[in-house]
Amino acid sequence: MLTKAQNKYIRALSQQKNRNEHGTYVVEGEKLAEEWLASDCKIQMVVALTDWVKMNTDLLAKHPEAEVIHAEPHHLESITGLQTANQVILVAYSNKTPKPIAAGAWCIALDTLQDPGNMGTIIRIADWFGINHVIASPGSVDFYNPKVIQSAMGGHLRVNLHKEELDAVFSKLKSPVYAATLGGENIYKLKEKTPGFILIGNESKGISEELLNIATQQITIPRKGGAESLNAAVSAGIICALLIEG
Amino acid sequence: MLTKAQNKYIRALSQQKNRNEHGTYVVEGEKLAEEWLASDCKIQMVVALTDWVKMNTDLLAKHPEAEVIHAEPHHLESITGLQTANQVILVAYSNKTPKPIAAGAWCIALDTLQDPGNMGTIIRIADWFGINHVIASPGSVDFYNPKVIQSAMGGHLRVNLHKEELDAVFSKLKSPVYAATLGGENIYKLKEKTPGFILIGNESKGISEELLNIATQQITIPRKGGAESLNAAVSAGIICALLIEG
Repeated sequence: MLTKAQNKYIRALSQQKNRNEHGTYVVEGEKLAEEWLASDCKIQMVVALTDWVKMNTDLLAKHPEAEVIHAEPHHLESITGLQTANQVILVAYSNKTPKPIAAGAWCIALDTLQDPGNMGTIIRIADWFGINHVIASPGSVDFYNPKVIQSAMGGHLRVNLHKEELDAVFSKLKSPVYAATLGGENIYKLKEKTPGFILIGNESKGISEELLNIATQQITIPRKGGAESLNAAVSAGIICALLIEG
Repeated sequence: MLTKAQNKYIRALSQQKNRNEHGTYVVEGEKLAEEWLASDCKIQMVVALTDWVKMNTDLLAKHPEAEVIHAEPHHLESITGLQTANQVILVAYSNKTPKPIAAGAWCIALDTLQDPGNMGTIIRIADWFGINHVIASPGSVDFYNPKVIQSAMGGHLRVNLHKEELDAVFSKLKSPVYAATLGGENIYKLKEKTPGFILIGNESKGISEELLNIATQQITIPRKGGAESLNAAVSAGIICALLIEG
């Protein structure tokens, strides 16, 4: 049975200040919950329909630390952040320390990225292209926002996520910084593609002046039509496809 | 003054059946409203703060067909579909007939694409790459869904949008059909890049068997990491960047 206190606690985790206070976050849906349980991520609580619990005893046995709560559909409805509740919602701990970033590898850096859908999609892009690190400036949307979790499709379990001041990271690692802007060099004509940071800016303001000054290379995906800009996550995907594979 | 009936009418346009019935849709926010008014799109109604109306008399003069309604902030709050209301909401007619698709040009085709954010982002991608046509199968999300309008960032005004059975269009035009799948040919190794249809499938089910059989070429963005797939809009962006420019 889901208690009132547990119900309140899980709903409170939709807000970043509560996630920060408790060091936990919510994962929803069968597919993601099963990925989380199959990983070595520490789980605090699993709220699920009895049928789902019965079907997943092996996965749950891997997590003796987790409290398993049998719930009715209306319990799940009352705590879901999605339009329709799934069979399972779990609460995981966010205390996993990311591996340190090493020079010589590709890395995606985000300057005050705001949209949770974009953040999740970019983590998923990193996960697809085998990029092991995503760094976001402190002003960026929280990695553990429920919409970020949903749109990253399990990327949180494979990509190291860092919240750090970007200039400090750049100056420490001395890898090239490729900054996505509207007035940079045509990305198709770039000769030097030494692995480094792919820097993506805020959805409306782009990259801050200060970081643009630090960037070793400003790059642009050439425009042929009438749009003012490309979506931040789409830009990140195209740049990865052109720099890493191309 | 915004009447109760107008308030009800505008809110009703968040639903596709009402948009279909009236042949109209909603555009929100200063930036988009100004783009719409600067275009030759027929406007039914403009609901805006008096200050905004005063600042935009020239734009409004271009649309004598539009009823201009001076509103208070709470009126806009009561009809907005966004988290916070902007200074202006307009209602436009969706009866513009798209130009016919010609063979020999790039075109994005969508098989039952469901997510409005993806649909809007793909229209924005087409708009960026100068792709003049997006065709969606009848089961796809409505082009005039408010979230599609927001995420396309004005692409509706420049890209021709078609809702048609894809197989009929493909067999009529006889252009190549490049189908994005997980098991196709490595897109980097593709030699033949004759302009044609870039076919993107449903977010969870991909492209239907029937359309895969019609496709002239199955293509894949090679995976290096652990993600199961890429987001549909990101895939569309990467494929455009590799086929059109590459």
